[in-house]
Amino acid sequence: MATTTRDRILQASLALFNADGLAAVSTHKVAAELGISPGNLHYHFKTKEQMVTVLFWRFEQKLEALAGGVERIAAVDDFWLALHLQFETIAEYRFIYRDMAFLAREYPELGRRAQALTAGNLLAAQALVAQLSASGVLQASSELARILALQIVFTTTCWLSFERFMPGRDGRDTDPGLAAFYTLTLISPYISGESRAYLDYLKSKYLG
Amino acid sequence: MATTTRDRILQASLALFNADGLAAVSTHKVAAELGISPGNLHYHFKTKEQMVTVLFWRFEQKLEALAGGVERIAAVDDFWLALHLQFETIAEYRFIYRDMAFLAREYPELGRRAQALTAGNLLAAQALVAQLSASGVLQASSELARILALQIVFTTTCWLSFERFMPGRDGRDTDPGLAAFYTLTLISPYISGESRAYLDYLKSKYLG
Repeated sequence: MATTTRDRILQASLALFNADGLAAVSTHKVAAELGISPGNLHYHFKTKEQMVTVLFWRFEQKLEALAGGVERIAAVDDFWLALHLQFETIAEYRFIYRDMAFLAREYPELGRRAQALTAGNLLAAQALVAQLSASGVLQASSELARILALQIVFTTTCWLSFERFMPGRDGRDTDPGLAAFYTLTLISPYISGESRAYLDYLKSKYLG
Repeated sequence: MATTTRDRILQASLALFNADGLAAVSTHKVAAELGISPGNLHYHFKTKEQMVTVLFWRFEQKLEALAGGVERIAAVDDFWLALHLQFETIAEYRFIYRDMAFLAREYPELGRRAQALTAGNLLAAQALVAQLSASGVLQASSELARILALQIVFTTTCWLSFERFMPGRDGRDTDPGLAAFYTLTLISPYISGESRAYLDYLKSKYLG
C-alpha cells in the first residue's frame, strides 16, 4: 500500500516532535523536512493543532488496543509483557507525555483528553491489581490496590521523561523491557511465593 | 532590605517560567511584566540563558541546603518532613523539572548539571535508605536500597509534573505534604512494626 502524503506528513511531524520537542516544531519545518510546499501541507492540515490531534488520537487508539488484552493477564510474565508493549507505544509517541505541560497549555482540549486517559489508566490499573490478587499472584487490600495503581500509572506516564535525568543515558534508546521491570518492582513486595521466580529472572537480567 | 532590580527580574522570570512554560517566555515578556525597558533588563541579563542559569543555581543551592539535614533523619516523621521541604522547593522552581526536555535541549550545560544533580540525589537517597535501615526504621538489603533510592528520586523529580495528568487537579495548588506521603508509600512495605504508626497517621490524613 502506497504511503499517502497525509501519512508522510504525520510520520515526519511525529519524528520531529519527538526529536526537537513540540514547542520547537512548526508546520513549515515539517514541510521543509519532507521537501513539500507549505501550501501542500496546508491542504492536508490547516494547523499544527490538527496534526497533533490526529497523532494524539492514534496514541489513544494504540493504548486502548493494548488495554483490551489486560483481561488475559493472570501471571507476572503476562504483566511484564503488557508493560513492555505499553512502554513501546509511549516511546513511539514520546512527545505526548514528555511535552504535556506545553501541549495542555496550547491545546486545552487535548489536555482534558490526557486527563481522561489517565483516569481510565488508573481504573484499569486498579482492576488489574484486583485481578492479580484474585488469581493469587499478589496480595493486596483494596486500599493497597488504589496506591499500587497510582504508582503504576505514575511510572508508565513519567518514566521515559525521567530517563533524560539519568546520567549516561544521552543518545541511548530507551529500553521498554527495563522500564517494565522497574514498574514491576513496585508490586514486588506483595508478590506471592510461587510468582517470585519470574521476578528473580528479570532481576538477574536487568540488575545482573 | 530593598529588592534590587536584578532580584525583581529573577522573581518575575521565575513566576512567568512556572506559569507559562520556559519555551513561551522571552526576556521581552519579562521586561514588559515588570514595566521596565528591554534595555534595562539587558543591562542585568544579556540573555534568557543567563536568567535561567541563575535560577537553576538557586534551585541547586536550596536542594543542597536541604540535603545537609539528611544525616539527622532517623525516623519516618523526619523523612516525611524532609520530603515535604524538598517538594516545596521543587514546586517553587517547578519549571526546571517540568520543562527539562526543553531546558536540556536549549542549554546543554544545564542539562548536564541536572543529570549531575540526579546522580547526587540517587547516592543521597541510597545513603538515606541505608541509614534508616541501620536505625531499624526499615529493612532493606543493599540491592533493595538501590531500587528504593531510584523509586524515591524518580518520584521527587517527576511527581509534580504528573499532577497535571490527574483529573480534577486543574488550578489547584500542589500539596507538598501529599506528595511526601505518596513518596513514603514506596518504602512502606519495608517499614518495621514500631515505625508504622506514623505512616498510619499520614494514611488517615491523606487517604482518609
